[in-house]
Amino acid sequence: MNKALNNIIISSRIRLARNIDGLPFPEKVSADKAALIPRDVYAALSGVDTYTIYRMNEISETDGNVLKEKHLISEDLLRNKDTGAAIINESETVSILINEEDHVREQCILPGFALKEAFTAINAVDDAIAKKVRFAYGEKLGYLTACPTNLGTGMRASAMMFLPGLSIYNSLQACVNAISRLNMTIRGVYGEGSDSVGYIYQVSNQKTLGVSERQIIDAVETSVGHIAEAELKARDSLKTSGGDELKDKIMRAYGILTNAYKIDSKEFMQLMALVNLGAYYGYIKLSDREQFLKLITNAQPANIASLSNKDLNGDERDVFRAKYVSKVLSTITKK
Amino acid sequence: MNKALNNIIISSRIRLARNIDGLPFPEKVSADKAALIPRDVYAALSGVDTYTIYRMNEISETDGNVLKEKHLISEDLLRNKDTGAAIINESETVSILINEEDHVREQCILPGFALKEAFTAINAVDDAIAKKVRFAYGEKLGYLTACPTNLGTGMRASAMMFLPGLSIYNSLQACVNAISRLNMTIRGVYGEGSDSVGYIYQVSNQKTLGVSERQIIDAVETSVGHIAEAELKARDSLKTSGGDELKDKIMRAYGILTNAYKIDSKEFMQLMALVNLGAYYGYIKLSDREQFLKLITNAQPANIASLSNKDLNGDERDVFRAKYVSKVLSTITKK
Repeated sequence: MNKALNNIIISSRIRLARNIDGLPFPEKVSADKAALIPRDVYAALSGVDTYTIYRMNEISETDGNVLKEKHLISEDLLRNKDTGAAIINESETVSILINEEDHVREQCILPGFALKEAFTAINAVDDAIAKKVRFAYGEKLGYLTACPTNLGTGMRASAMMFLPGLSIYNSLQACVNAISRLNMTIRGVYGEGSDSVGYIYQVSNQKTLGVSERQIIDAVETSVGHIAEAELKARDSLKTSGGDELKDKIMRAYGILTNAYKIDSKEFMQLMALVNLGAYYGYIKLSDREQFLKLITNAQPANIASLSNKDLNGDERDVFRAKYVSKVLSTITKK
Repeated sequence: MNKALNNIIISSRIRLARNIDGLPFPEKVSADKAALIPRDVYAALSGVDTYTIYRMNEISETDGNVLKEKHLISEDLLRNKDTGAAIINESETVSILINEEDHVREQCILPGFALKEAFTAINAVDDAIAKKVRFAYGEKLGYLTACPTNLGTGMRASAMMFLPGLSIYNSLQACVNAISRLNMTIRGVYGEGSDSVGYIYQVSNQKTLGVSERQIIDAVETSVGHIAEAELKARDSLKTSGGDELKDKIMRAYGILTNAYKIDSKEFMQLMALVNLGAYYGYIKLSDREQFLKLITNAQPANIASLSNKDLNGDERDVFRAKYVSKVLSTITKK
């Protein structure tokens, strides 16, 4: 199950929503006061790890989107050109969003199925910040947040999951229904609307109030486990029913990714999903899963533009992406 | 021009139609008499080269189609299960068809642009046979043939040409019109009807009477030269207008051919044509053109079935073909 889980669960994320005591929520706070928060939080973290501060009014559009594609900041933060800021550690596992919906949103993302580890890490960050900054906290409501759906723990625990089997069988809705009873929700990570390009989904808790952090993590772990099991079954049937056609589709996807002269990000995601499934089935030998997942991020539009170090138009970007993808994939895979 | 011609002209072929003096044409001759011809011709050739005799009533369906796909025998010969036979030399450059439309059809196929060489070779074969067998010959009509279109020299000189540029630009008809004034004709080699899968065409003379062998060869060479020049120009414009899209299409074709799990012969031909064009443009480095052309023949249905040494159904054949093609192509090409 462990190796299989590695193919299914891409990353685990814990996010804590916090606000400064005595300060109106970001929507209402004055720019002057809001502008002080990044400095205070940054100061609180010095000594814990090496952090860099990115102010949304200083960052270039590409650099901002690079961080967004890495899931280190949100579109909402990016748009707050007045007082938005992100404080990110060197390994890019911890990111503190300042003046987004809440004053402070602390998140930790770790590869694989590691919610507890992510919680431990973000808890340490939370403690460090809490030493310098007093968070708004009520006896009954717990951490006070701008949106009532985050009250209580202010915690969102989520797993990013690769679910080609359930997607292709249209069984995702059944899973959603099953886990919604556990107060869980699921959404596509890439692409618009309910469709998820590349079969990548995020499963997370909806309930933050009246439960402990530990209970949230347990519930998400249980849900993720259920979904993973269903996904494994779906992959088995898919292999049986898909047969040679499916294997051919996977091998052609691999052939195109390692040979195309140009490729856009949507097709890249679709083909990578097939190759990822091929790695699960053993059709393709993948020697470095971490690099494979990093490639997914690196080939997104802003990241690929940033890697090229050049001012590329859309077509040139697709050419650069194809070359980059082919090179990386050829290094970490074998037929 | 020489290297370019190598990419355009796949092979050259000379065919001489002959009939035995005093014997009715194959349509009318008795089976007893017809059955003697293979033996006589075979005897005439012993000492010239090592020949194998294939009798159409003994050969398996697959083996017969193997020879047909190699252009060593015709469908008409294959169907003459009574008295049809082929006498083929070891290198498979010379093939004598017995009891097809005429009693004896001698052909020589050589790779590249080599009509004169092919003529020299088949002329020697013709002389050797003529020493044992008296051919029907009239002072005015030359060699007498079953169909009047072959009277005179009984000779058809042809070149197999790879013409993607002219095909894609729909300029082939203009070429056909131009060369038809020279009494030349052009037809697709693979696929049904006027379409040619893989852009491979055969250019040959129509006129056999009232011209010398030398004149026929000169006329075919001139026509082939004209077509090749037009093809080169078309390829240049194609490269300019096709740009990145064309290069991408070529590289994806290469990726699919070297990675697909299954492939049918039609798609194989279409993708090989793109790779061949890519080799011309220098997008793909081809180290062994002879093996590349051999691969085209070897991947045809009967040849691939024969190479597999197994009794495969259609799907299994496509799987075997994909594996074979990927292996050979990976050996003789580089990006």
